[in-house]
Amino acid sequence: MPTELPGKDKLDLIADNLKPYIHRTPVMTSRLINEMTGSEISFKCENFQKTGSFKIRGAMNAVLSLSNEEKAKGVVTHSSGNFAQALAYAAKQAGINAKIVMPETVVLAKRDAVLGYGAEIIYSGSKPADREIKCEEVRNETGATFIHPSNDLNVIKGHSSCAIELFRDTETLDAVFTPVGGGGLISGIALGFKNFSPQTKMYGGEPAGADDAYQSMKAGKIIPVSNPDTIADGLRTSLGDITFPIIKEFVTEIFTVIEDEIISAMRIVWERMKIIIEPSSAVAFAALLKNSAGFKNKKVGIIVSGGNVDLGHLPF
Amino acid sequence: MPTELPGKDKLDLIADNLKPYIHRTPVMTSRLINEMTGSEISFKCENFQKTGSFKIRGAMNAVLSLSNEEKAKGVVTHSSGNFAQALAYAAKQAGINAKIVMPETVVLAKRDAVLGYGAEIIYSGSKPADREIKCEEVRNETGATFIHPSNDLNVIKGHSSCAIELFRDTETLDAVFTPVGGGGLISGIALGFKNFSPQTKMYGGEPAGADDAYQSMKAGKIIPVSNPDTIADGLRTSLGDITFPIIKEFVTEIFTVIEDEIISAMRIVWERMKIIIEPSSAVAFAALLKNSAGFKNKKVGIIVSGGNVDLGHLPF
Repeated sequence: MPTELPGKDKLDLIADNLKPYIHRTPVMTSRLINEMTGSEISFKCENFQKTGSFKIRGAMNAVLSLSNEEKAKGVVTHSSGNFAQALAYAAKQAGINAKIVMPETVVLAKRDAVLGYGAEIIYSGSKPADREIKCEEVRNETGATFIHPSNDLNVIKGHSSCAIELFRDTETLDAVFTPVGGGGLISGIALGFKNFSPQTKMYGGEPAGADDAYQSMKAGKIIPVSNPDTIADGLRTSLGDITFPIIKEFVTEIFTVIEDEIISAMRIVWERMKIIIEPSSAVAFAALLKNSAGFKNKKVGIIVSGGNVDLGHLPF
Repeated sequence: MPTELPGKDKLDLIADNLKPYIHRTPVMTSRLINEMTGSEISFKCENFQKTGSFKIRGAMNAVLSLSNEEKAKGVVTHSSGNFAQALAYAAKQAGINAKIVMPETVVLAKRDAVLGYGAEIIYSGSKPADREIKCEEVRNETGATFIHPSNDLNVIKGHSSCAIELFRDTETLDAVFTPVGGGGLISGIALGFKNFSPQTKMYGGEPAGADDAYQSMKAGKIIPVSNPDTIADGLRTSLGDITFPIIKEFVTEIFTVIEDEIISAMRIVWERMKIIIEPSSAVAFAALLKNSAGFKNKKVGIIVSGGNVDLGHLPF
């Protein structure tokens, strides 16, 4: 466990500093879905967040945490997903340079969104090692600060602002379900609740086709995912040396769900709540649906992590 | 023009009486969409309304307006769309019997929703005349009150509650765009604004493939639609002798849009706002998009009429 985990006052200050840059997203409820699960669910709607996902919280906090010298040299990350847009947007807000390493095979819409925020794209091969080498090259050449999409304490601290808002907008929750990919979101949510509502239990939802957090919790050490296979494209990454200790300490259990369960949960939310959530977000709800017997009459929060989907390739 | 059009106090009372039965739906905004159109748009989100559309407002008011003797004999309507669910739900809330005449070819999900609210379905042939004959039969046999999905003053009065909420949640709007099918919604919205904010101009959006309101306004008399052909399934019906005079009096202009414009507008809202709106709702936004030059720097309301779509048959 890193010794420098922040306390309540520090997290509150971080959340306050983020306010000018992010939306305070709504908490939504659905009577029909409550009837379906037997629990009272508060959906924290980060699909309505700027850039379409929670990632802006961590990206913005990481950028705001830079020194002036660091800001002058810019930031670099590797991401073909939501963090790419988030860091590009955060850098634009702060008036600094951002370079995003992406595989040449990236979806055009995602590339265009990053370019639209004024960031520079640097193409790499499609293997994880390729992008890391490219990031290292950029750092060496420019002095830019590398910001990891999940395994970065400033990113995690930024995400805790989402937990603080959810805590303030709901009565005390018994449990919160969060999707788990690299573990940055659930670490931030767990850190927030640990400080603001320690009695609230933390659960993770993870695709069975990328169940490294489940395996890592069982083994007591990081077991990286190999050949992830899931529609939940935000959750194909592995835990890191910063996220894993936080999750091990603060998360009660990781539940896995199969692809059909993810797609079915996503469809239920689209049809019943009329909101667009991405497959990664549906994983957290699918985990509750699958284990609803254990949460009857409980107040449950679900972190709807984002709403960026390719409408041309829906699973329905 | 019917002489019995209600004034401000009466409409306010109707809206108050509806409150226990409906949601006060949110007004949403999108910076990206404002930049796209150059206007400042308030989306009134009836896709989040109970039963998934605004129709519950009119249906509930019609049911609440019945005498006790009428209530004892129940209600009947013909609808294979949102009004079917709305009247079934309204009747359930009031504890009265509802019979819904639907064509045998109705989509299963819509049938199931109506049955789920405890209403009885009576199947008819698929031609408009078939369902009217069947409704007449039910009225004669049971004494049930027939409630037309749009051409009914109590239905229209109920819909005006949507205008009152939008008026109260926004600064004074310059214009409001509403989709036009049978004309019940736009009549109610126009009646509401006429009383609460008469300087706000009313515009209708209509599919070119079902442009009876556009044609009727031009001709100064009702020109019913023949062979409507549009994805906007809620807008295939024609104006009636109650809705047309109200529209003629209070609506500034009806804009038509073609199918590609409807689908494109729907996709923009799904992608940018992360909310599910049905094609009929997209028609109002498409009408603004097409005519945005005339609404630069204006405050514009758009009535998002509903969010009931068949995810198995999306146009993307």
